[in-house]
Amino acid sequence: MIAILVTLIDLIIYGALKISNINSIRWSRFLRPIFLINFAESRQIRRVFRSIRNTLPEITYVFLLFMFSVLMFSLMALKLFGDRNLRTVEGSPYFTNYLEIVFDLYVLVTTANSPDVMMPAFDFSWWYSLFFITYVVINTYLFMSVFLAVVYNNYRKHLKNEIRKLAYMKHHKMIEAFNILKVKEGTENVVQEAQWKKLVKLVAPDISTSHRELLLRVSDEEQKGYVDKKSFVRLADLLNIQVIAMRIQTHPLEHWMPHIYNSAVSLFVRSMVQHKGFVWIYDVIILINAVFIALDEENPLISYAEWVFLSLYILEILLKVYTYEPRAFFAKSQFWNWFDTSIIIAALIATILNTSFKSASQYNSQQVLDIVFILRVLRLIRIVDSIQRFRVIMNTLINIVPTMLTFGGLALVVYYMFAIIGMELFQGKIQFFPRNSTAHHALECGNPALKDSLFARAKYCKNNFNDITSSFVVLMELTVVNQWHVLANGFALVTHQAAKLYFIAFHIVVVIMIINILIAFILEAFFVEYSLEKSEVETAIERKIQELGVGIQEEELCDGKLIDNMETSENDLGGEEITKKKSKGLMFKIASKTLSLSSFWALQHELVACSSYLHKEQSWWFSFSRC
Amino acid sequence: MIAILVTLIDLIIYGALKISNINSIRWSRFLRPIFLINFAESRQIRRVFRSIRNTLPEITYVFLLFMFSVLMFSLMALKLFGDRNLRTVEGSPYFTNYLEIVFDLYVLVTTANSPDVMMPAFDFSWWYSLFFITYVVINTYLFMSVFLAVVYNNYRKHLKNEIRKLAYMKHHKMIEAFNILKVKEGTENVVQEAQWKKLVKLVAPDISTSHRELLLRVSDEEQKGYVDKKSFVRLADLLNIQVIAMRIQTHPLEHWMPHIYNSAVSLFVRSMVQHKGFVWIYDVIILINAVFIALDEENPLISYAEWVFLSLYILEILLKVYTYEPRAFFAKSQFWNWFDTSIIIAALIATILNTSFKSASQYNSQQVLDIVFILRVLRLIRIVDSIQRFRVIMNTLINIVPTMLTFGGLALVVYYMFAIIGMELFQGKIQFFPRNSTAHHALECGNPALKDSLFARAKYCKNNFNDITSSFVVLMELTVVNQWHVLANGFALVTHQAAKLYFIAFHIVVVIMIINILIAFILEAFFVEYSLEKSEVETAIERKIQELGVGIQEEELCDGKLIDNMETSENDLGGEEITKKKSKGLMFKIASKTLSLSSFWALQHELVACSSYLHKEQSWWFSFSRC
Repeated sequence: MIAILVTLIDLIIYGALKISNINSIRWSRFLRPIFLINFAESRQIRRVFRSIRNTLPEITYVFLLFMFSVLMFSLMALKLFGDRNLRTVEGSPYFTNYLEIVFDLYVLVTTANSPDVMMPAFDFSWWYSLFFITYVVINTYLFMSVFLAVVYNNYRKHLKNEIRKLAYMKHHKMIEAFNILKVKEGTENVVQEAQWKKLVKLVAPDISTSHRELLLRVSDEEQKGYVDKKSFVRLADLLNIQVIAMRIQTHPLEHWMPHIYNSAVSLFVRSMVQHKGFVWIYDVIILINAVFIALDEENPLISYAEWVFLSLYILEILLKVYTYEPRAFFAKSQFWNWFDTSIIIAALIATILNTSFKSASQYNSQQVLDIVFILRVLRLIRIVDSIQRFRVIMNTLINIVPTMLTFGGLALVVYYMFAIIGMELFQGKIQFFPRNSTAHHALECGNPALKDSLFARAKYCKNNFNDITSSFVVLMELTVVNQWHVLANGFALVTHQAAKLYFIAFHIVVVIMIINILIAFILEAFFVEYSLEKSEVETAIERKIQELGVGIQEEELCDGKLIDNMETSENDLGGEEITKKKSKGLMFKIASKTLSLSSFWALQHELVACSSYLHKEQSWWFSFSRC
Repeated sequence: MIAILVTLIDLIIYGALKISNINSIRWSRFLRPIFLINFAESRQIRRVFRSIRNTLPEITYVFLLFMFSVLMFSLMALKLFGDRNLRTVEGSPYFTNYLEIVFDLYVLVTTANSPDVMMPAFDFSWWYSLFFITYVVINTYLFMSVFLAVVYNNYRKHLKNEIRKLAYMKHHKMIEAFNILKVKEGTENVVQEAQWKKLVKLVAPDISTSHRELLLRVSDEEQKGYVDKKSFVRLADLLNIQVIAMRIQTHPLEHWMPHIYNSAVSLFVRSMVQHKGFVWIYDVIILINAVFIALDEENPLISYAEWVFLSLYILEILLKVYTYEPRAFFAKSQFWNWFDTSIIIAALIATILNTSFKSASQYNSQQVLDIVFILRVLRLIRIVDSIQRFRVIMNTLINIVPTMLTFGGLALVVYYMFAIIGMELFQGKIQFFPRNSTAHHALECGNPALKDSLFARAKYCKNNFNDITSSFVVLMELTVVNQWHVLANGFALVTHQAAKLYFIAFHIVVVIMIINILIAFILEAFFVEYSLEKSEVETAIERKIQELGVGIQEEELCDGKLIDNMETSENDLGGEEITKKKSKGLMFKIASKTLSLSSFWALQHELVACSSYLHKEQSWWFSFSRC
């Protein structure tokens, strides 16, 4: 509400001044991301912000100590080098102004001006390199790691607290629900089966009847017709576990024309596709394809080869769909099958489009061609998919993606704020002129203040804050850190030396805080991945699946008979056990833990993963395929 | 043995060839660090190497995947930018050669050529910046974090295994010892008190009688005159805990001249020194001193002020020694008192030396003056010491120092190997000429191949492999990463393009492996610091100290009456409890956990810290001062 009010006031002031022809600053603009945080499904971003706020006091003390260290070293540098009459490579005096030394040494912490900042002193005497080495060891390696440790530690602490709080709340609410639904059955309070079913239907309308039946069997172990308190409270956890119900279905073709589908030729084709050699052959094809992609496009033979490869890939997909049950092949969990198919189809469409453009008007559409190139190269990823070890790492990486997206939201908010401020400060100060432009001061980015600056010499003119896109690109460059001092100096030259503060603030907020949170995110996700064991509830469901004999047998999966063997190995990581009984048509399996982790940041799911993670001793082992 | 043999063979071959005037390569030189690892107290370095070896298989797979990603993106870059006729800032063709693209993009992973490598494509169309942003996010942020996660995870796993093994071995050996010494006492096997004392005297000859007596009281809880099996096995842990025995002694001056020392004036001085205001006044003095240091040295008033500050500091130390018991003030654990005193004394000596040099011969010794400057600035660190929060962080950092030294040993070995190889490859290829030198090709570092190269333009001539010192400095610069591609290109120009492989290898080994181990070290040290709880054995000793009433009371310490209050706060971090009974002359306290951690890598000590760390649920909280 306050943000809306403030924005409104700003709008009125701005409008009023605009009418009287005074251009003022729309100072409320950088508040806009608040709307992004407050509305929509941004609970997770808010959570991260809360976590940052909690980290602030502790990180502040480390930061002050770090700044004290920088200031001390700067003082030392002033005394050691100030009177030596040394010159930098550009010929300016070396380390004579205290504030400039502080900036230079702050940049050295980010390593962006190493080793240039050291060279004049090093040229004078090699002893002085010890000063810079000590500085880098203490401030870059030690302090930056301490920042990571503090951020990581807090992130972790905060996450645990949130999970504990949520777990407590969930438990509390479930008991409340139980108290409303309970009836007296003998000596104990219970919930009747009918009531229970009604409830489950209400809260989880989209799970299948058989799945609900399974959950009931888990909750009502002895089939007494009612659910006791302990089992009832567990319901929320039970519902959180992804149980994939799959019907073992006959292939549609077998259904429609069983004679042809089961003929000798068809069987041979199917066994061929299921053979390991099939994967190998396609790996070789991909490698050859990679070589062809690298070769010159102009050669007609090679552009013809492209069609050959494309048809080979399409043939592969058709063969696989022919062999495996299409609904199983394109199941939700089959990420790689979806990936392959969509890449191939997109490549097919793009290639056709490109060819038709070309033949139609001799005009070679740039965008379409670029997309064709990218898709062609992306096809090569499939080779990773066929090597077990890589697949495991890739799956973990893919599971991190949702986390990264939350993180992307956070980054977007911070970037947006800085972009708005940057645009207010630097808009129009630096202009980009295409090469060979004859405009005045084209070489100095349209600003004579940049004459002879490193900024102009490195041709950074397009790095400006003239529009939101450019601003984001510049901020990304600042995040990567390298050469940020050149950018900072450039913008300071066209405005004021104090502009450097903007860049330092960005470094502190984004590189020291946000990037460390990202690293903490990734580390934690990997550690959880390594340490994940089956939770108690998952074990209960699995036991029941096994008892009922409706699971999918692991051994069979390992033989690769039932489902595409790709899927099997995917399941190995989590270490779950899957059992099966062929006679029944309906089967269950617990979705791979790697998959349930994909909602890592959706705390509901996290709860399952993390409660086991909290309570069990953490043994961090790689548990690669047992298959 | 093999290394010695190989070295010998090499020597003979080299000597033989030398005689016949053929210069060959002393190829065995890079084996020398093996001697460093195998001899002396380098168990810890060997342990780290073992840990690296164990990490290799896992990191190899991640690395292959990472390289695959780099190669894929390079292929994409070749297709996207290769035919665009773009030019780099230097005017050379942009992204046309596949191998060069791979190198450029590998450098981009290290961020060293960002954003320069992007600028030509970005200038062409801002769309292409997305390619580079995606690349950086995936390869720099994601993969580099994954490397850290893998190294950290393995380091941790390996550390736990070592500790488990050691704990098991220790337990086993103690039981063996017990079986040798045991006698039958009633129904149980025990070790007689006399035997026990003899044993302790034998294995720990340097602990005091009173300390031994204390340990006996812990082991023989009920003073039955013998130690049972359970308590006996605990002995090794008991001996590992640093118990500081301190005699509450009267001040020597009070002993020699009690009338004067306890006179009204003396009491006033002593209470003044103990007052908080005393610390504050000196903090203000230090701040004023900092300003004076920054001012111009030539001004006679300022060089006079230096003497004033020096005498003020000396006065402070004298007053403190007058007020506090000197032996307590200079106790082993009083790091900051030692630090202050030695800095001041060193500054005094250096300043006197400098002045006498100056007056004696008008000659201003450079080295002495440098040392004076550094010491003057180092004195300012004391201001950190008087702020509680900073002191806590500083103590943790100081505790990391031994870990860093082990790490330094590891780094030294790797650096040495690379330095030897680098010297064989690049020695004499690049020469450094002082400024204004008229030598031939002075601007091109004595090598015409470097004409117009970035290397020569940035004046990097002193970055060469001509001697071991320069090599180490260059390797340090490569570790810091920034501009490493300029160095790599420079050395590739004077030798061969393949020389880049040396620099890439260094990056993989040092930055991806070693630096990540360093970060894992620091993270782990900080987490242990945060999570450290009292171990079972320490609690037992403490309880006994309290029971016997020979501990030092925490509250009294907090009032700062007994010992310099600096020491008190140092002890707060570990959270130990100290009790005291004034009537007795001898007191004990458990050495601060932060101190026992200082031997973090000496596994014996680690055992105590880490066994608690393994078995208890890890709650990682900051436990700042409770005082």
